[in-house]
Amino acid sequence: MTRRLSLFGATGSVGQSTLDLVRRDGDSWQVAVLTANSDVAELAKLAKEFRPAVAVIADEARYADLAEALAGTGIEAAAGADALVAAARAPTDLVMAAIVGCAGLAPTMAALEAGTPVALANKEALVSAGELMTAAARASGAPILPVDSEHNAIFQCLAGGRIEQVRRIILTASGGPFRTMSAADMARVTPAEAVAHPNWSMGAKISVDSATMMNKGLELIEAYHLFPVGLDRIEILVHPQSVIHSLVEYVDCSTLAQLGSPDMRIPIASALAWPDRMATPCAPLDLAGIARLDFEAPDEVRFPATALCRAAIAEGGARPAQLNAANEVAVAAFLAGRISFPAIVDTVRRVLDAAAPATPASLHDIFSVDASSRAAASHFVDQYEHA
Amino acid sequence: MTRRLSLFGATGSVGQSTLDLVRRDGDSWQVAVLTANSDVAELAKLAKEFRPAVAVIADEARYADLAEALAGTGIEAAAGADALVAAARAPTDLVMAAIVGCAGLAPTMAALEAGTPVALANKEALVSAGELMTAAARASGAPILPVDSEHNAIFQCLAGGRIEQVRRIILTASGGPFRTMSAADMARVTPAEAVAHPNWSMGAKISVDSATMMNKGLELIEAYHLFPVGLDRIEILVHPQSVIHSLVEYVDCSTLAQLGSPDMRIPIASALAWPDRMATPCAPLDLAGIARLDFEAPDEVRFPATALCRAAIAEGGARPAQLNAANEVAVAAFLAGRISFPAIVDTVRRVLDAAAPATPASLHDIFSVDASSRAAASHFVDQYEHA
Repeated sequence: MTRRLSLFGATGSVGQSTLDLVRRDGDSWQVAVLTANSDVAELAKLAKEFRPAVAVIADEARYADLAEALAGTGIEAAAGADALVAAARAPTDLVMAAIVGCAGLAPTMAALEAGTPVALANKEALVSAGELMTAAARASGAPILPVDSEHNAIFQCLAGGRIEQVRRIILTASGGPFRTMSAADMARVTPAEAVAHPNWSMGAKISVDSATMMNKGLELIEAYHLFPVGLDRIEILVHPQSVIHSLVEYVDCSTLAQLGSPDMRIPIASALAWPDRMATPCAPLDLAGIARLDFEAPDEVRFPATALCRAAIAEGGARPAQLNAANEVAVAAFLAGRISFPAIVDTVRRVLDAAAPATPASLHDIFSVDASSRAAASHFVDQYEHA
Repeated sequence: MTRRLSLFGATGSVGQSTLDLVRRDGDSWQVAVLTANSDVAELAKLAKEFRPAVAVIADEARYADLAEALAGTGIEAAAGADALVAAARAPTDLVMAAIVGCAGLAPTMAALEAGTPVALANKEALVSAGELMTAAARASGAPILPVDSEHNAIFQCLAGGRIEQVRRIILTASGGPFRTMSAADMARVTPAEAVAHPNWSMGAKISVDSATMMNKGLELIEAYHLFPVGLDRIEILVHPQSVIHSLVEYVDCSTLAQLGSPDMRIPIASALAWPDRMATPCAPLDLAGIARLDFEAPDEVRFPATALCRAAIAEGGARPAQLNAANEVAVAAFLAGRISFPAIVDTVRRVLDAAAPATPASLHDIFSVDASSRAAASHFVDQYEHA
């Protein structure tokens, strides 16, 4: 049976991996929507290959280029934020939400409100607007299928059980490239050192988040929303090899874990095929070859980001959106050479300390918190730069 | 809701662990049957505590003792093999089959034929009569819930999936106490050294089987019957810490694993409560405390038992029953100081080489193979002793 897939963020890493799987299993899929942020050439190329009904470019200034590239193909060209939301409301069997950052929030909400199952690779949306998104999903009955490798692991470990039977969720963390580095040395790390992740090949933002362990803190917030077991039942465990992607401990002390090679096509395939499974060309796990897996408790003194995230979601309201926005600005400033590595998490802390916005009641409120937190973070970045 | 439990092998290790869980969760259970091999005093004590309708002692010579001990309690006393089978046919919600060795075969078959779900802790029964047992379960629709920690792990990892989606089953093995020992040194090991298992506290027979890795070979045969993925899709992986109890790899290269402390109450609770879960007093897993898990390929030169088992189940028919019977005799001879440690597996090989009985079509045929193989094994043991 052919299923319709709408892919938001087709030209990014998760988007390309998704299309790699669809390409190998073409008879099973009919691509309904493809979107990209600004890469018209790549979007047009993918559209000509996968023949969606509509292709949307987020950057409105590029509409004419897209329309020209798709002229005569029968594929509708569209552009802008409203077009993204309209495309997310179009009937489809699965939305892959792979837009990076808050830009993905509005179309993902639109899909959930329409009752469409969403494969969610957009961490920031869930961090900033977790209450609104999970409420929308509950109201329409749309399932959220996590694509992040850790959350997909937890989702798989829950497949044979019930959330009430869970004693503990254990989110594994590689510990990043500076796991064994002293705090003094961390003050001197460069952007190039920070983006060199030991296990996964990822974008610069998420690689820096992994180095500060802010990524794991954001995933803690994500897990809190996706798996309602209570914050005190979600723990972080450092596991440098990133082979066990997360674990679920049940009330009988049975612990289930999902393991795999560091290939995003594995969790993507899990979300695409759910509740079935589909073949992938990924490398099977060779535990005898890997020989050894290590585990250690996280060090929240050298890596204070996870404690900051835990406090933010415990307080709730606008806190996670504030934290996420401040972190995006601080990471960009670090990558631009404007602030030091430890100043990333310090900037986030200062933004949280400086203001406590009211609990957001709508996406509009979320965007306001996002904007004011970015402004505050920029202010603190300027102070660092001129200190 | 109260469920009726019939426990075969109440005084053994699995039986006592089962009753420990039932004792803690008394309102959920009504014990219908308790049986023991020969320990009348313990059986009578347990019967007075758990108040089954009937208590059966396998050794007929002890009937009078049991009847006297239960006089005036209203609990029926019974004895002998036929009484065991009759008790297994009595209506109940779950049979825990925890009798050790081939003695458990007839009552377990009776329960399966009656359509009763069976929690199976009796490895030898499935090894010797796997075809007959799984055919009986299929015919009546009775589920077999594996209690062996490895098979229970696989069963749990399959809960969210389908057997057709399985790419590989990976059965973990501790490697036993002689994992790193040279073949020359193994020729000199004593029974005391062989029964000192590094991770689990178990009986002498299974500890020796673990030392020869025959236990893993028997578990391979067990897995072959329980999880019909084909023999070439079942692998053995040495994992000295015994924390990961086994793994299931799916077609998408997602691998699920079950982990836990080495406490048999965890898989027993899983089988008792299935498809739900029940709380246990077991120690939660502390991976940061454990710090490290190791993996290596099995060495079938120093440990030839697993290859012997793989060949036996590949050939099928009477081979597994022959192998199991020969191994029981050889292990007993080793424990009695009559043969060397390497002679255990050699004895089994000789028995398999010496005769190829016809495929058993009934339990009677299985018992014939069992008897002739024991006789052959005893013959080879005598030869060793007088060599």
